Amino acid sequence: MTLLSLNSSSLENFLLQKLSRVIGQAPIRIVLPSGSEISPRHAAPAGTLVIHDRQTLLRIILSPEIEFGDAYTEGRVEIDGDLVEVLAAVFRSLSGRNPGSWFARLRSKLLEWTQANTLHGSREHIHRHYDLSTDFYKLWLDSEMLYTCAYFESPSVGLEAAQLDKMDLVCRKLQLQPGERVIEAGCGWGSFALYMAEQYGVRVKAFNISQEQLAYARATGKRRGLADRVEFIEDDYRNIRGKSDVFVSVGMLEHVGTENYRALGEVIHGTIGNSGRGLLHFIGMNRPRPLSAWIRKRVFPGANPPTLSQMMPPLFEPWNYAVLDVENLRLHYAQTLRHWRNRFERSTDRVAQMFGEQFVRLWRLYLAGSEAGFVAGSLQLFQLLFAGSECRQIPWIRAHLYEKIQQTAKQEAKWMHAAS
Amino acid sequence: MTLLSLNSSSLENFLLQKLSRVIGQAPIRIVLPSGSEISPRHAAPAGTLVIHDRQTLLRIILSPEIEFGDAYTEGRVEIDGDLVEVLAAVFRSLSGRNPGSWFARLRSKLLEWTQANTLHGSREHIHRHYDLSTDFYKLWLDSEMLYTCAYFESPSVGLEAAQLDKMDLVCRKLQLQPGERVIEAGCGWGSFALYMAEQYGVRVKAFNISQEQLAYARATGKRRGLADRVEFIEDDYRNIRGKSDVFVSVGMLEHVGTENYRALGEVIHGTIGNSGRGLLHFIGMNRPRPLSAWIRKRVFPGANPPTLSQMMPPLFEPWNYAVLDVENLRLHYAQTLRHWRNRFERSTDRVAQMFGEQFVRLWRLYLAGSEAGFVAGSLQLFQLLFAGSECRQIPWIRAHLYEKIQQTAKQEAKWMHAAS
Repeated sequence: MTLLSLNSSSLENFLLQKLSRVIGQAPIRIVLPSGSEISPRHAAPAGTLVIHDRQTLLRIILSPEIEFGDAYTEGRVEIDGDLVEVLAAVFRSLSGRNPGSWFARLRSKLLEWTQANTLHGSREHIHRHYDLSTDFYKLWLDSEMLYTCAYFESPSVGLEAAQLDKMDLVCRKLQLQPGERVIEAGCGWGSFALYMAEQYGVRVKAFNISQEQLAYARATGKRRGLADRVEFIEDDYRNIRGKSDVFVSVGMLEHVGTENYRALGEVIHGTIGNSGRGLLHFIGMNRPRPLSAWIRKRVFPGANPPTLSQMMPPLFEPWNYAVLDVENLRLHYAQTLRHWRNRFERSTDRVAQMFGEQFVRLWRLYLAGSEAGFVAGSLQLFQLLFAGSECRQIPWIRAHLYEKIQQTAKQEAKWMHAAS
Repeated sequence: MTLLSLNSSSLENFLLQKLSRVIGQAPIRIVLPSGSEISPRHAAPAGTLVIHDRQTLLRIILSPEIEFGDAYTEGRVEIDGDLVEVLAAVFRSLSGRNPGSWFARLRSKLLEWTQANTLHGSREHIHRHYDLSTDFYKLWLDSEMLYTCAYFESPSVGLEAAQLDKMDLVCRKLQLQPGERVIEAGCGWGSFALYMAEQYGVRVKAFNISQEQLAYARATGKRRGLADRVEFIEDDYRNIRGKSDVFVSVGMLEHVGTENYRALGEVIHGTIGNSGRGLLHFIGMNRPRPLSAWIRKRVFPGANPPTLSQMMPPLFEPWNYAVLDVENLRLHYAQTLRHWRNRFERSTDRVAQMFGEQFVRLWRLYLAGSEAGFVAGSLQLFQLLFAGSECRQIPWIRAHLYEKIQQTAKQEAKWMHAAS
């Protein structure tokens, strides 16, 4: 990358070079209002970052994650080109890097402390994101209101089918049997709890601390005649009591925080003991990193996707639990987010009426940034099946997971080259 | 459990009670030559441990793992009943326990130090076990001479087919393509390297430090006309150089030692870089524990099966490698060992001629103890697929792994209850 210094002051040149280093020399063109710009020399740019004023440029250099996010939200920067591609290019360029300057690390740590996932903190955090308004989520989620990674038997499957297929895949992995008792921690709008009861004949106790989601879940359960088999309970996972055969949690672990894994492990062991089994579905990372500070500040307070080696020792080792199966579905989350983003973009007028234009831009950046994270591999999605030492339902092989899948989908899905 | 004190001196009673605690109150009847015995009160005994003299009793109490193993080898103790069941009962009873007294832990640590896996140490250790004599291993391994866990598409499949199926499963997991370059670390008698070249058209460099195995591998490669596509190299994994698309290792990691994982990670990254992929197949544990001191002293010097959370940070995190798929095949290793043990028992006359009666007993205890470890869950078998951050061969779903598997086998394999 080099500096094209036509029409630019030497200060702006200096700052542009600085910013280029901050984004890991990603192949991005950067343009200032004065006409100053910097372009990648050896690669076609993935897109152009247009910065509207010099002050914004300076702030992004000093605190890139938060200031870029806020400037994008407020319209002080624009992206010319595909937002996901530009962000993925930056994430790829930064993937070999240490997590920022001492200042960025300190700021990230401070954010972690102020957002501790205590009982009260978790309630605040979950309320802030999930209680935005069910009507808002209805605009861009599938009809089952699943706000977690779907499972696309082939890339051409639609979102509605892929969410049903995800629920069924988890049930098959758990080999649910009629009459078994299941505890679900973090049940969202309740669809998975209802699916398990309806399709596999199990009895479910489903926990959540989001009031709005629970109200929706209870109403749906009643309407579908499942209220006697699915109990929705407003409580924190730390207060889960009672015995069950199976413990399942889809999309909660990334909100728990590493400091609470041991407590979650105790809750799991308290319910399924040594004879049960469980599945955790969660956003993870390849190595320990804080999540984007902007995402934690503006979107998901307290979120902290772990590595496998961070979550296994406190969650499984004290109870001698065995890891049976880990599947990485990061490309499926990229695909899920693509669907959500397309649906969201078709509803922006409605969203702007509800929350204003800046919220539209904030949410656009969050959805595109998450998609870019899964495309670039900064984020992973793990489904992890585990069992107690006395569990008698250990699958012999995994062929039963794929019996339902059509041959055509199998052929189509055989190869997938990660988007680049 | 209680003490039936008929015909027994109070000292013997005291020692029997001590021993019963040492084996975690496992439901085992213990009998001394005087007629003193102790029996489980609440459960039918899994078998009877007959101890031939009081000194042996005392030594087993003081250093159970090593002294029991040596006493069994020398015929100073006998097991009445199924050897695997008795050992599995003990392993289950001990599974919740801390790893022994300070004395046992110190002894275990000392053994670790004296058996460090330096370049020289590894060569000594591997020589001691794998160079015993190819003729000996021919007596009880399959015809491909695979001395690692097989993959039984259903429990009724035979060992020969299951070893071929294991090799093919690993190739399918790696999605090998014709012309690709593969590095195999720890290639045993060479069958898997030859299988990959023959069935998937790849070029293989296969490393091993066991001379006798390599001589066999080279001769087989020549005979099968594969010498131009499979190169067998006598060298330590730490000296592996050259680029490849794929890194694979079946049954080596448990001999590497945690202190060398970072070096192994560097070797892997040096060969496949950020664009490659790899698979590690290894004996592992649910939580960090030293392997049986007797096994390390008499059978596998330097062996150290890791937990997933021990091997992931040094091997994968420095290079931002993603874990794509983990499968736990411990029941398949129990089944493999059952086959090996049955074949071994049919050849004990021949083994006794080669190495003497005590060796027969030692090897019987090692095979039965390993089987019991996998049955009881003290040992796990992990197949772990991973990929670099720029790898473009990420499987979309895993259905392609199960296309070859017959419907009947799928039905039969659907459920497997762990032997108890």
